[in-house]
Amino acid sequence: MYKYTMKLGLVGATGLTGVELTRLFYSHPYIEDFDLFSSSEGNDGIEIADLYPHLKALKGKKLKLFSPEVLKNYDFVFLATPHGVSQEIMPQLITNVGKIIDLSADFRIKDHNQYSYYYGKEHKCFELVNQFSYGLPEIYREEIKLAKYIAVPGCYSTAVILALYPLARNNLVEGPAFINGLSGVSGAGLKLDSSYLFSVVNEGLKPYSIKNNHRHIAEMTQELKIPLVFCPHLIPMTRGILISCYVALKEGFKDSVIDVFKNAYLNEPFIKLVDKEVSTKDVLYTNNCMINVSLVESSKFIIIFSVIDNLIKGAAGQALQCFNLMAGFKEEAGLLEVGPWP
Amino acid sequence: MYKYTMKLGLVGATGLTGVELTRLFYSHPYIEDFDLFSSSEGNDGIEIADLYPHLKALKGKKLKLFSPEVLKNYDFVFLATPHGVSQEIMPQLITNVGKIIDLSADFRIKDHNQYSYYYGKEHKCFELVNQFSYGLPEIYREEIKLAKYIAVPGCYSTAVILALYPLARNNLVEGPAFINGLSGVSGAGLKLDSSYLFSVVNEGLKPYSIKNNHRHIAEMTQELKIPLVFCPHLIPMTRGILISCYVALKEGFKDSVIDVFKNAYLNEPFIKLVDKEVSTKDVLYTNNCMINVSLVESSKFIIIFSVIDNLIKGAAGQALQCFNLMAGFKEEAGLLEVGPWP
Amino acid sequence: MYKYTMKLGLVGATGLTGVELTRLFYSHPYIEDFDLFSSSEGNDGIEIADLYPHLKALKGKKLKLFSPEVLKNYDFVFLATPHGVSQEIMPQLITNVGKIIDLSADFRIKDHNQYSYYYGKEHKCFELVNQFSYGLPEIYREEIKLAKYIAVPGCYSTAVILALYPLARNNLVEGPAFINGLSGVSGAGLKLDSSYLFSVVNEGLKPYSIKNNHRHIAEMTQELKIPLVFCPHLIPMTRGILISCYVALKEGFKDSVIDVFKNAYLNEPFIKLVDKEVSTKDVLYTNNCMINVSLVESSKFIIIFSVIDNLIKGAAGQALQCFNLMAGFKEEAGLLEVGPWP
Amino acid sequence: MYKYTMKLGLVGATGLTGVELTRLFYSHPYIEDFDLFSSSEGNDGIEIADLYPHLKALKGKKLKLFSPEVLKNYDFVFLATPHGVSQEIMPQLITNVGKIIDLSADFRIKDHNQYSYYYGKEHKCFELVNQFSYGLPEIYREEIKLAKYIAVPGCYSTAVILALYPLARNNLVEGPAFINGLSGVSGAGLKLDSSYLFSVVNEGLKPYSIKNNHRHIAEMTQELKIPLVFCPHLIPMTRGILISCYVALKEGFKDSVIDVFKNAYLNEPFIKLVDKEVSTKDVLYTNNCMINVSLVESSKFIIIFSVIDNLIKGAAGQALQCFNLMAGFKEEAGLLEVGPWP
Repeated sequence: MYKYTMKLGLVGATGLTGVELTRLFYSHPYIEDFDLFSSSEGNDGIEIADLYPHLKALKGKKLKLFSPEVLKNYDFVFLATPHGVSQEIMPQLITNVGKIIDLSADFRIKDHNQYSYYYGKEHKCFELVNQFSYGLPEIYREEIKLAKYIAVPGCYSTAVILALYPLARNNLVEGPAFINGLSGVSGAGLKLDSSYLFSVVNEGLKPYSIKNNHRHIAEMTQELKIPLVFCPHLIPMTRGILISCYVALKEGFKDSVIDVFKNAYLNEPFIKLVDKEVSTKDVLYTNNCMINVSLVESSKFIIIFSVIDNLIKGAAGQALQCFNLMAGFKEEAGLLEVGPWP
Repeated sequence: MYKYTMKLGLVGATGLTGVELTRLFYSHPYIEDFDLFSSSEGNDGIEIADLYPHLKALKGKKLKLFSPEVLKNYDFVFLATPHGVSQEIMPQLITNVGKIIDLSADFRIKDHNQYSYYYGKEHKCFELVNQFSYGLPEIYREEIKLAKYIAVPGCYSTAVILALYPLARNNLVEGPAFINGLSGVSGAGLKLDSSYLFSVVNEGLKPYSIKNNHRHIAEMTQELKIPLVFCPHLIPMTRGILISCYVALKEGFKDSVIDVFKNAYLNEPFIKLVDKEVSTKDVLYTNNCMINVSLVESSKFIIIFSVIDNLIKGAAGQALQCFNLMAGFKEEAGLLEVGPWP
Repeated sequence: MYKYTMKLGLVGATGLTGVELTRLFYSHPYIEDFDLFSSSEGNDGIEIADLYPHLKALKGKKLKLFSPEVLKNYDFVFLATPHGVSQEIMPQLITNVGKIIDLSADFRIKDHNQYSYYYGKEHKCFELVNQFSYGLPEIYREEIKLAKYIAVPGCYSTAVILALYPLARNNLVEGPAFINGLSGVSGAGLKLDSSYLFSVVNEGLKPYSIKNNHRHIAEMTQELKIPLVFCPHLIPMTRGILISCYVALKEGFKDSVIDVFKNAYLNEPFIKLVDKEVSTKDVLYTNNCMINVSLVESSKFIIIFSVIDNLIKGAAGQALQCFNLMAGFKEEAGLLEVGPWP
Repeated sequence: MYKYTMKLGLVGATGLTGVELTRLFYSHPYIEDFDLFSSSEGNDGIEIADLYPHLKALKGKKLKLFSPEVLKNYDFVFLATPHGVSQEIMPQLITNVGKIIDLSADFRIKDHNQYSYYYGKEHKCFELVNQFSYGLPEIYREEIKLAKYIAVPGCYSTAVILALYPLARNNLVEGPAFINGLSGVSGAGLKLDSSYLFSVVNEGLKPYSIKNNHRHIAEMTQELKIPLVFCPHLIPMTRGILISCYVALKEGFKDSVIDVFKNAYLNEPFIKLVDKEVSTKDVLYTNNCMINVSLVESSKFIIIFSVIDNLIKGAAGQALQCFNLMAGFKEEAGLLEVGPWP
């Protein structure tokens, strides 16, 4: 099988998103080889399969110690590092490498005030933000194809924006959207906090960021340009995000609202419009976003539901989708449209 | 220990709610004895502990075959039968027994049209509905003390009404309340439907009754008298309900909204107001309803969260709370305020 | 991409194993097309994606009504029907089609008495059993390549036989093997039994077939030819089997036991020997069997652990592995060695 | 209601076992008051309900800073501290307080070599070990009634010893017992290790301490005096332990083995012998140990299954059972025989 020859590196290979990217690289039809980097000296020279036995088939693939210099002349670099790291290394990195796909939040927000408000600190190289494209192919496909630098959207943001964009773009929403978010625990990565212990999570359920202050709201309002109230909840499951948007339509648009969505997503390979209840389980391990628009009888209200796999369409998969576009590959290459069930 | 002597019967002992009521009767300080009835001939004479080994300590307690006649002269009868059964047997039952606590939906709705609309059929003895009190002690305590017949509220209804009643009663809500409901699977009892199989439920998440047509809406609007949009979701956990209400306040009331709740629930033994995120896990196995009111900065919106154990405060526990009031016992008798964790 | 042209049919497409096979066919590099059959008239003409929304990408693929005649001239037929169905249809089917891969238990047991004992009834066409090869490539690869008819092993059997075969073949085991089996709930398919409801399964754990009478024992002893005691347990998870075998080694073999395994599985693409604790999670969605051999200090005992995904290596994946061998494809085609995690 | 007046203290109140003890104290019919201690200065003066909202009904109950002096003149002290802490503080504590119930492993092992072997270090006050009784009432009830100092058994040890003691005491076991242990994640407390994160645990399953070197083996062999191989496994559930013991009986005893168990546990309030499959779910939140003895047809082997709630009969409940005996209360006081289900 033909494989494209390029130098491809992944920084932050040992986090959850990094591990999923590693798997996707491994099974991608056109990626011949790739290098894994970690900022932890303790990981230098360690086989990734020793840390993650499910990657045993990658026997021999070792972690390398990251530095901006060591990535010199790489064609593509994926950054799956914690928020805040990208902005530290970007000024140097950007001079060394070809194209950069950043999965962190550092280069998503174009408005300086919004960034400072939601992230509670000054950005360290805000002047670079405008060189980054927002990596949501369903909105910015053509821009992404030509982009050198991509800021991959947040997981909640992806599901919310895809659920509301057709209405928001057409200016059909009246008043604020009330958005209820539900996420599996992998959204928190492997963070060692008692809130994410099995014993604490299982058979429980709770909201968080309850003051309409979740950081992803900055992205949602940037892209949708409508007022919204958003509250996320932690669900006792590993993967999956379900968004329920309670929205009032401007008068006269209710009859055509389903068509608005059909038209918007007509040729999208990964958007699956359905006319019944969505389930996160129906998109797990795929790059799909499944959307259902439900009309509330004899009223102007509708409820829009969207589901994604937060680690795929909400992170690693979307990054790979952008990569495919930037590299000139088939957009779906290495990404699933059908996942295992149940 | 002193125990009150009364004839107490439970019809529908083999369903989930019946099993929890059986346990609560067994450990109630003032219930000396009780009889368990089932409508299934196959269960006649069977020990409940043979069906439910966790009830092994009730060794010798056998199921009896239900008929309205066999309950003659019972002081208290609990009906934990499926919806629709109560209205079949009530005309005869009501002449035979002292007091009746019906956990089904049959006698909750006072408006004939609402009943027909949400339940999709004609009620078989609607003329009896007005003899029933709505068994929510936080609103109808004094009425319940004197009542002969109680319709115990639905699980979602309990959590929603308790979350919104202080505002609704004081006419502080502007426009509709958008209510997102999350429930564990035990809300469906032991119904044999593939939707409730472990393999289908675990690691999944989905909305249902997505057209604002969940039956409990009839109760919510009856008690709250405000417009509302309500959508329930099935969560991969056994017990627990979490309600997230997105509400706009009428102008000028935001500063005092917390006090409104404090005043409303000042002396309530089972309402726990907290100033941080609620978790269903913090109320499991108790009769508590824990409520948090969260203000959205620089806006008129608030989010109210409430959590209950759907089988306790949402069913068996609330029925027992009503029973305690009707029997003149301490309202908290046999009910937990602190449950096991985690 | 080149795709082989053949007529390929799947009978029993709507069960869990059928659904996984459908997915594997869809993503198989050399399968161009396939037909899905169901024995239920109600399913005739229904789109599989209407029953299983995660298969939405197969839009247009309809279920057909099964009969032995309709499969005439098919090159390959997979039977994912319930146990007992294959033996009903096999005499007719075998005259109509090319090659048959039966995932049921009907043609696994070569000893008539063993079949009757473990399955509690007479076989309906036992004379055909000897035409079937036992579809475990790690033991019968060459035979499978030439076979027309395959009986795919049971899920527990696969994990147990692979864990013990290197020792059993070399006659190194002393006395009986004590085998503890743990399985996720999908092992029971979508059977509507209250034992498999989420509320009953989650946060619980129980053994079953506790009298050493699980049906898969017939296969295990047929292939291993050693005495064994086996007890399976139901675990609150969807997929995965973990086998823990407590075994005494014949004197003098302890030092070399790891090498015995290494030699036995040297070139096996899907056997992953590891020197630390295995986890079912490390093989989910793959066709791997991961095995660890642990020596108990200063004694003749060892514990062998093996893990598989019961729906892949324990069913659909193993069937496809056999198919690849029979069709002359690469053995690994369409099967994962690395799955998503976590 | 009468309540006994005593000074009762709990050290280590903020761990999982401490939290369950706190709840049990709160609902115990004869415990009027109790004090909660923590060794962390940061906790000093903090309300326990602020750390654990499910304890909201204990509003006002504050944590105090632990020191051996501050416990002077306490009648009863429970130690729910991590292993190793008790032996640091015991020499001083033992001179200050009346009776001590230690839930750690520090004073369970009577053989100095066994302690050093399994715990990998020297004991700091081994001379005190003999003053402690092993707190398993089913074996040492009379000794416990008179004891001043109790070492509460480990969770696995409790389930294993209760499953095998009737046979071991009567010398009926031939050869080693092969014991497979399955435990929920709460056995690890709230330890912050990625192995216990929800995302890592759910839908997974793995053995640990795979070299027959789990520390509880020291207790099991001390009490049972038979050779055994024991391997524990981590199960994706919060609470519950299930033990499956594969045992060969000495010749001639098979017919009477059930009676051996019946006689041994005739009057035990918390031992529930059943003649079908046990489930951990049937004992959750209770102090019960449910046991099933299953004969393997036409062989000398039997399989004994036992289940407990690891935090109750395996820790806090058993400690309270010992306390009841030491204080002269009803042995069952404050402990459940019937728990909520499901």
